[in-house]
Amino acid sequence: MKQLAILITSILLPLSGYCEKQTDEKHKSLIIKEQGAFSAGGTVITSEGTFDPLKPWYESQGGQTRHGDHADVLYQIPANSKINSMVFLHGYGQSRRCWQTTADGREGFADIFLRKGYSIYLVDQPGRGDAGQTTHPIQVSVAPDDQTWFTQFRFGLYPVFYEGVQFPKEQQSLDLFLRMMTPNTGNVNEATIVDAMSAVFDRSGNGILFTHSAGGAPGWKTAIRNSHVKAIVAIEPGGFCFPEGEVPEGNRGGKGIPMDEFLKLTKIPIIVYFGDYIPTKETPAYSQNFLRNVLAIARKWAEVVNAHGGDVTIVHLPEIGIKGNTHFLMSDLNNKEIAEQVSNWLKEKHLNK
Amino acid sequence: MKQLAILITSILLPLSGYCEKQTDEKHKSLIIKEQGAFSAGGTVITSEGTFDPLKPWYESQGGQTRHGDHADVLYQIPANSKINSMVFLHGYGQSRRCWQTTADGREGFADIFLRKGYSIYLVDQPGRGDAGQTTHPIQVSVAPDDQTWFTQFRFGLYPVFYEGVQFPKEQQSLDLFLRMMTPNTGNVNEATIVDAMSAVFDRSGNGILFTHSAGGAPGWKTAIRNSHVKAIVAIEPGGFCFPEGEVPEGNRGGKGIPMDEFLKLTKIPIIVYFGDYIPTKETPAYSQNFLRNVLAIARKWAEVVNAHGGDVTIVHLPEIGIKGNTHFLMSDLNNKEIAEQVSNWLKEKHLNK
Repeated sequence: MKQLAILITSILLPLSGYCEKQTDEKHKSLIIKEQGAFSAGGTVITSEGTFDPLKPWYESQGGQTRHGDHADVLYQIPANSKINSMVFLHGYGQSRRCWQTTADGREGFADIFLRKGYSIYLVDQPGRGDAGQTTHPIQVSVAPDDQTWFTQFRFGLYPVFYEGVQFPKEQQSLDLFLRMMTPNTGNVNEATIVDAMSAVFDRSGNGILFTHSAGGAPGWKTAIRNSHVKAIVAIEPGGFCFPEGEVPEGNRGGKGIPMDEFLKLTKIPIIVYFGDYIPTKETPAYSQNFLRNVLAIARKWAEVVNAHGGDVTIVHLPEIGIKGNTHFLMSDLNNKEIAEQVSNWLKEKHLNK
Repeated sequence: MKQLAILITSILLPLSGYCEKQTDEKHKSLIIKEQGAFSAGGTVITSEGTFDPLKPWYESQGGQTRHGDHADVLYQIPANSKINSMVFLHGYGQSRRCWQTTADGREGFADIFLRKGYSIYLVDQPGRGDAGQTTHPIQVSVAPDDQTWFTQFRFGLYPVFYEGVQFPKEQQSLDLFLRMMTPNTGNVNEATIVDAMSAVFDRSGNGILFTHSAGGAPGWKTAIRNSHVKAIVAIEPGGFCFPEGEVPEGNRGGKGIPMDEFLKLTKIPIIVYFGDYIPTKETPAYSQNFLRNVLAIARKWAEVVNAHGGDVTIVHLPEIGIKGNTHFLMSDLNNKEIAEQVSNWLKEKHLNK
């Protein structure tokens, strides 16, 4: 009888807790059908010699392999998940952490969209974070550079925050943000990242690719490679894929790509978001001019893709009345508002299913 | 009316899904009250000079800070969580991945215990995985060493698996296991790891510390440091904390610690698990002899702690009829059976609350 009571309680308590919390979104429980971790993509190298299993350390280091250059993926599938999943790729110096939380511990884009019913695939790209093992050695530097990133990411002109910035100004939040930075653990090239990202989509199935910053460039090529990519949401992407011979000066996306590859980008809807503090004219601040150039190239790129029948939208947030956003608009103080913008766009493109 | 129908469906469908799945544990949904990520502990270094925010890259690299040496933590709190949480610390060459999943994609210890109602805190220690940023530079090597680890971890004597080994023998599983390896991203010392782990417990509150392999040594010191550690479950820990002057030859836990610190280890229950393929006599295989020595020292250590009033249990699994376990018994094919062993011990110690 006691066991039965415990059994009933163990079933009903979670349910009552769930129902109570329906009215309080902030504390509503997540119902996860499945979660886990896996590796995707990657390479193997082999050393010469013969391996002696009796002496694995001292006398026979040869004849061995090393697995590396894979992506590391955490995924969560909610109850009654939508058909389209979401795959998240971070930028330079970052890991999936930038999508999982915020500097002040609020929910990041991953949980916001998980609550909306999307399956979430959070990537550490090859040579970053938990995908640390590569086949290309590197010297990890520890040169102090927090202030460079504070400035480059447009929190302000260090030590002064921009007026109205959507970044939490408490010292603790900046401390926690800076601890999200994590170095390259190998000299991995873009093709390796694209290989791994394509393998992630083989596993996730059809979905929406979110990219941030330096993740933008391999993101376009992932969509070209893998038809499971049904849309791209690019947050201040660092470079664009132009057709060969049409690459504008200052684009960080490398040389152009063949037209038949480029045309694949015209087959899916793409939206590109830019935050605030991007001046219209040249200013003394390098970080602002840098983004001014990126935004100008983004607009050119949208014109080219759309001229070929594509569907690219560039959103400069201040122009639609959303102000104060930094380079990390997915974790800024108004990230729920930004997520709503994305949701509305997905609905418009019939991808919210 | 349509909106109301959608609202009702959106509430009821997850609930019905949850109830249906009560009978099928493998596919039972997880109900998560809260999940997120945070950093714990860490240091800051500062460079000389003056930072010029107008030229963040080229002419003023000085006058900057670097945050590093923190732990990176993912946590999940289930509905109706128990009072005691669980904190998981990986071993050498590993990240929290070793607790999150298995080589063949089954649930790891984290999900198994989350289902039992424990809040889960999964650590990447300073200089590993997503906690990549440190203040101590390192050269990351890519020397092939898969076969060394296969052998050291007692999957077999490469390329031959041990007879009856609880490791999945498909090539794909070994491939995925080897991709869980991830390098040090800085030269971080044990004290830094202990600092960070103690900060994790400040956040998690009272709980059970799980350690694996090289995580064992900083684990003992975390328990000595932080009274929130209410028990330790150590899986083949790599070194032990003896009192000064009583350290046996071959212990990898470094020099002894003051008696007043050591005595803190007598105040909490501790259980230490060892897997299979540990011979009773010297053999030609280095990896087997290595563990034979560790097990012998573990038994000595238990005697010393218990002689001072402690509560240490050493479990050599084959002696209780559980055979075939490797160094990774938390992700071996029988990891649910091992988890049940742990659960029974926690119940016995009144920690399953």
